[in-house]
Amino acid sequence: MSKFADRIARVQPSAIRDLLRYGDDPSITSFGGGYPDPALFPTVELQQVFSDILATESATALQYTASAGLPAMRAQIAKRMSEGGTPTDVDDVLVLQGAQQGLDLVAKLLIDPGDVIVTENPTFLGALIAFNPYQPEYAAVDIDEDGMDVEVLEETLRSRSDVKFIYVIPDFQNPSGVTLSLERRRRIVELAEEFDVLVLEDSPYRDLRFEGEQLPTLRSLDSENRVIHLGSFSKILAPGVRMGWVSAGPTILEKLGLLKLAADTQSSTLNMTAVTRFLETFDIDAHIAHARVVYRQKRDLMVTTMAEEFPAEVALTRPEGGLFTWVTFPEGFDSAAFMAEHALPEARVAYVPGGTFFPTAERSNFARFSYSGQSDEAMVDALTRLGGILTRTM
Amino acid sequence: MSKFADRIARVQPSAIRDLLRYGDDPSITSFGGGYPDPALFPTVELQQVFSDILATESATALQYTASAGLPAMRAQIAKRMSEGGTPTDVDDVLVLQGAQQGLDLVAKLLIDPGDVIVTENPTFLGALIAFNPYQPEYAAVDIDEDGMDVEVLEETLRSRSDVKFIYVIPDFQNPSGVTLSLERRRRIVELAEEFDVLVLEDSPYRDLRFEGEQLPTLRSLDSENRVIHLGSFSKILAPGVRMGWVSAGPTILEKLGLLKLAADTQSSTLNMTAVTRFLETFDIDAHIAHARVVYRQKRDLMVTTMAEEFPAEVALTRPEGGLFTWVTFPEGFDSAAFMAEHALPEARVAYVPGGTFFPTAERSNFARFSYSGQSDEAMVDALTRLGGILTRTM
Repeated sequence: MSKFADRIARVQPSAIRDLLRYGDDPSITSFGGGYPDPALFPTVELQQVFSDILATESATALQYTASAGLPAMRAQIAKRMSEGGTPTDVDDVLVLQGAQQGLDLVAKLLIDPGDVIVTENPTFLGALIAFNPYQPEYAAVDIDEDGMDVEVLEETLRSRSDVKFIYVIPDFQNPSGVTLSLERRRRIVELAEEFDVLVLEDSPYRDLRFEGEQLPTLRSLDSENRVIHLGSFSKILAPGVRMGWVSAGPTILEKLGLLKLAADTQSSTLNMTAVTRFLETFDIDAHIAHARVVYRQKRDLMVTTMAEEFPAEVALTRPEGGLFTWVTFPEGFDSAAFMAEHALPEARVAYVPGGTFFPTAERSNFARFSYSGQSDEAMVDALTRLGGILTRTM
Repeated sequence: MSKFADRIARVQPSAIRDLLRYGDDPSITSFGGGYPDPALFPTVELQQVFSDILATESATALQYTASAGLPAMRAQIAKRMSEGGTPTDVDDVLVLQGAQQGLDLVAKLLIDPGDVIVTENPTFLGALIAFNPYQPEYAAVDIDEDGMDVEVLEETLRSRSDVKFIYVIPDFQNPSGVTLSLERRRRIVELAEEFDVLVLEDSPYRDLRFEGEQLPTLRSLDSENRVIHLGSFSKILAPGVRMGWVSAGPTILEKLGLLKLAADTQSSTLNMTAVTRFLETFDIDAHIAHARVVYRQKRDLMVTTMAEEFPAEVALTRPEGGLFTWVTFPEGFDSAAFMAEHALPEARVAYVPGGTFFPTAERSNFARFSYSGQSDEAMVDALTRLGGILTRTM
């Protein structure tokens, strides 16, 4: 039988996939997936929007359209980005099948086998899954409470001539929950200019800040169109409509548009029409303001419960937004083995063991917990059960 | 500025893209895009389906789900394929963002730079657009009224050791409208076995047969899981929901599932739920039966009008289904130049010049016309105008 392409050696089942399965077992309380709280979906509004569209403009909404996306949707996205401090024109925006598609298309645009992508260490597993088929090498730069260490980044860029882009999740990073400081945002853009590389800014959680001050996007700090910005409606509207976008300079955006056409022709005309109408008709900022209150309360509950129930030597981040906290167990602890041997069978709790978030050398003593997907009661019960077993076994 | 990956040399704007733009100019009658007739969209049924889903199951329909697609949708697709003569299990099916995504993912799975894809000559431009970034070479095998010439195919497979797969559109081929004969279907599967290559069967028009007998899929003739089958709801339901699928053997399907996860996480949960509910609730076969009547009448009208109004030396195919007829002008005629100089400015008519459908050596004297997208009156008027200018200039 014909053999697969060489790139397929890099395409393997991942921990995230298995973990999403635990989410379907009702006896398991899963903190695994980055699922938004379904109680926050604007169901009534979407019902009205879909009903109106199918009643009055189904001939266009169910038909093919331009691969770049509906101009009215791109205009709404440009308006929101501009109002959020990143001046953006309708022609700077391409609609995507979720921000995930942007990770695929940007790697397809830039990466020849052996090219280097600089990432945060740890970084988003879904990005590694998207990048891997293009056979990059990774240079993983450690993070602290202010995000990527820019001194290590500078050393990395100085020592490697084959870096194509720096991948960064500046707001409430996945998996760590930390936010890149303003000073470091500026420094990353400066370094990109100095070393002539691009920056891929992935910010699906940006609007979900529930404390502290909003920081400028890297794209807004960039005067050379070096920053490619990915955004998403998955966390502020609903993931099931699969709507994200990329904003970039014209040369890059034109090529990404051609790659979008090649990959899937276009995103759903119906869903683009619906999201556009939602944005035109309803106040998404009021909707997001409510989501922020909910997620803040959930973060507080998770952080407080973990502090009370987990052994004192377990550390965790206190994110200012987004969906995740990052738990650090003592050196030598194996969070994957603990999950298989204790958390799942005894506590009936799932999380994401941290190992696979490290692109170059896995570390065993971390775990990602999402506070978005469980009710308060289920969260407290599950974390209490887990804390008991941690105390007993550690 | 960082340079693009090598593959981007193969990513260029295409004729299809420019032509889709003419479709937006109301003064131009376009036979260009393969747009289904919007009067056939089951608007009322879809309105009911979306309304029901958003009222009763929005928490799951707007949420993330498994990247392979909803099991209930995969089951409906397997049932339809099985009833259509291709025994298919729910586990043999992966939901895609239109069949176009299957073209991208299959090339991603199989093609290293320089590997050979055998295609029909001419073939679907969208497939070349999907394949090109993986840097294949093409071996284009001429077609006649029974589809791909299997003797030339055999010579090709014998003379080239680097063929990865044979790409074939067996039913009402795009762009030519011809259908692959049963004998040749069997022969292609035999040759794939003999020369140990795969077959990519792309059949988005299969259900739109309006005369003649349905022929078995290549996948149903294959006992070694060498055939990868792509299907689509774009032409039988609506393109704007972006729903297609791939059916293949387990080893291939598992890898395609991982590539789907990497590319865009999953297709829209909402749209998958809606299409599933539509298939469970309504009689799609009755809907398709109606579409067949409409398209048959449109084909008749186009073929008859062209025969009456075009010069006698212009030949055309009479497809038994699908959306396209293929027009052959005399040797030396340049259909692209004629369109720019006469068809667009004088007749206000657009079609797709045939050159770009030929993967290896463009031929100038062909054109693809779609009969699906225009009203009867607009079609006759436009073809009459075009015929007058053809008669005058040829």
